[in-house]
Amino acid sequence: MNIPTTNYPRIVIIGGGFGGLQLAKGLAKSKCQIVMLDQNNYHTFQPLLYQVASAGLEPDSIAYPIRKIFKNQANFFFRMAEVNKVNKDERKVITNIGEINYDYLVIATGSDTNYFGMKDIAKYAMPMKNVKEALNLRSLLLQNFERALLAENIEEQESLMTFVIVGAGPTGVELAGALAELKKHVLPFDYPDLDVRRMRIHLIEMADEVLPPMSEESSKNALKYLEDLGVTVWLGQSVASYDGKTIKFKKAEDLKAHTLIWAAGVKGQLVGGIGEEFCERGRYKVNEFNKIEGLEREYAIGDVAFQATEENPIGLPGVAQVAIQQGRHLAKNFKATLNNKEWTKFSYKDLGTMATVGRNKAVVDLKHTKFKGWFAWVIWMFIHLISLVGFRNKMITFFNWSYNYFNFDKGVRLIIRKYER
Amino acid sequence: MNIPTTNYPRIVIIGGGFGGLQLAKGLAKSKCQIVMLDQNNYHTFQPLLYQVASAGLEPDSIAYPIRKIFKNQANFFFRMAEVNKVNKDERKVITNIGEINYDYLVIATGSDTNYFGMKDIAKYAMPMKNVKEALNLRSLLLQNFERALLAENIEEQESLMTFVIVGAGPTGVELAGALAELKKHVLPFDYPDLDVRRMRIHLIEMADEVLPPMSEESSKNALKYLEDLGVTVWLGQSVASYDGKTIKFKKAEDLKAHTLIWAAGVKGQLVGGIGEEFCERGRYKVNEFNKIEGLEREYAIGDVAFQATEENPIGLPGVAQVAIQQGRHLAKNFKATLNNKEWTKFSYKDLGTMATVGRNKAVVDLKHTKFKGWFAWVIWMFIHLISLVGFRNKMITFFNWSYNYFNFDKGVRLIIRKYER
Repeated sequence: MNIPTTNYPRIVIIGGGFGGLQLAKGLAKSKCQIVMLDQNNYHTFQPLLYQVASAGLEPDSIAYPIRKIFKNQANFFFRMAEVNKVNKDERKVITNIGEINYDYLVIATGSDTNYFGMKDIAKYAMPMKNVKEALNLRSLLLQNFERALLAENIEEQESLMTFVIVGAGPTGVELAGALAELKKHVLPFDYPDLDVRRMRIHLIEMADEVLPPMSEESSKNALKYLEDLGVTVWLGQSVASYDGKTIKFKKAEDLKAHTLIWAAGVKGQLVGGIGEEFCERGRYKVNEFNKIEGLEREYAIGDVAFQATEENPIGLPGVAQVAIQQGRHLAKNFKATLNNKEWTKFSYKDLGTMATVGRNKAVVDLKHTKFKGWFAWVIWMFIHLISLVGFRNKMITFFNWSYNYFNFDKGVRLIIRKYER
Repeated sequence: MNIPTTNYPRIVIIGGGFGGLQLAKGLAKSKCQIVMLDQNNYHTFQPLLYQVASAGLEPDSIAYPIRKIFKNQANFFFRMAEVNKVNKDERKVITNIGEINYDYLVIATGSDTNYFGMKDIAKYAMPMKNVKEALNLRSLLLQNFERALLAENIEEQESLMTFVIVGAGPTGVELAGALAELKKHVLPFDYPDLDVRRMRIHLIEMADEVLPPMSEESSKNALKYLEDLGVTVWLGQSVASYDGKTIKFKKAEDLKAHTLIWAAGVKGQLVGGIGEEFCERGRYKVNEFNKIEGLEREYAIGDVAFQATEENPIGLPGVAQVAIQQGRHLAKNFKATLNNKEWTKFSYKDLGTMATVGRNKAVVDLKHTKFKGWFAWVIWMFIHLISLVGFRNKMITFFNWSYNYFNFDKGVRLIIRKYER
């Protein structure tokens, strides 16, 4: 792969997400060589993908070139590559652009949409786990309204304007809220010759509350916000099948909808050569040092790692904070090795959770307190803004949010590439 | 096509470019119905496409939703459609979403890349006439550098880093300058393990000066700017063939380059049913009222129209100002009909031409004066900023330009969709 060999150990990181980034940054100026592989040349701030899908932001607000992040880090090498397989016996990674040896391997590939084996859903539903998928969803959403204008009967028109989101985690809730705001403030003016009141947003959740990981109080408040915005929330329901037109439920009547958005589950993005035998719940089982159980030089961090703790016997949650903290901690441990010091165990500090439903409507759970409403919404925006990589992305996002706030508008209603199912 | 019929005459406009927009705006509050058809749901500010291609701007800075522009105009209807054919005997337009009758038809489809019948060039060269093509070019540019890292020999590496632009009109000159700035300020830091000094930018022009329509003085100044930035300019040269790897010239040695960007010519985007017999130089020949010669109810404005004047016997130039002025003027004439008044003849007011090569490097020709350098560059930016549609687009572009200026950076180095030839 044309990467110079040095006398320092080589750490290969697969994935430039939250975890991989922190790990590589933490090893700046250390006596090691870092090689990061990612199929994209950018880092994605996944928590705001739904805003790309709902025409609020362009990709450049939430994506950041990986090379730019590390342009001053001399021990860092990046290659845009797709990993085919890891050969752990020979300690090398085999990719579409060649092979590379490693002294240590860190798998930070994150998660992908989990359809739980339902092939019809995988075929017809819209996922939203990366920038391309978010742009596809944006195109489809707008195309549906263009098509609704041409519909020959009211049933087809309503089906085109019906959006069913499965999964009421933060992604599902935030997207449902964003669509509801489009319905309220934008679409009636864009489509004066269409009765946008007929647009329907359904949010389907298997559990009996929205935002299941949050406090009962916050779940209730989020539900209230969703209902205030006109989202139809179905609790304790799950989808049985979808043929692109009709959604069948296990315990409810059918629903006709041209669009089903699947935000109901994720699974670890495993790499070839390190298989299910190293997994628990579909993720690599790691010890308290993030080393994959049963392996010597292979580590996993973030969504692809399964790390059970006393507080979280079914594994740490698949959120950015876990990946960030694990990445930082593993960097410290690698540095300890380079300095002949002992490794320390990882422990997760839960900084709280939050979700936004819409303008002035958000819920925040902290360790000792919880709150909602305008203040929660401001906190949500502030935290997300400062978490974006780079001054430019922060500023553009801030401008877009301010503009949207004062104009009740979402400016990026562009179908750049049509989505064809 | 589900558009309500009224007692007012219906004007169908094909194309939401500079001309179509002005025409439709000019007929607001008039007693007519306007139906605009466009294959995209947005207007494109084409003069800044090269900044999308060179990673300076995202599409939302230069594209604007057509529905948003007209959201308060009650007599305006938009349909996203591809026009297959005009049936002028029955006065109807046949599209992929159905048919529509018209009382008056205005063809404002603009221009597309002209390869002058060279099939190999059409196959292997990169055009840059719309947002998709600009995004493809951005992806290819960045992919080439990723590939150059993996090249097995120096010849292949140099070929991947060689960009040949054919045509030294404003598009070619501005793109060449933008690539030269990427080479100088961005790429060496993004690719520390690549010898970016080997990157080559060639600009090929058949005439014996760059920017042929501008004054001799401005052409000379632009040439000097290009050479200062390290662009190799070939005057009096034209391309004979290209197979994706080697460019053959009519009067010079071969050049090896993975990327050939074709900015050497445009042709009118004719519509089916109104053919070559109504054309001169590949554009619809119109009279001084922009009516297509030989037809009764069919008009053409902008790049797709050929309008000869005393000063411009080979037709008015294919620039935004012509389209804008023709659109505005035709609106006035339609209004005259509605008010039983006489039509007035169109006359083009040349407001001057300008082009930018890079930071502090631009040339401006006005009727009575010409200037260059920092002041010309500021004027260029100001004129382009105020010409962008919408406050939001102006602000985002202004922020991006300020950021680029102070940081010597172009922030959108994202390969969102890989380009596969």
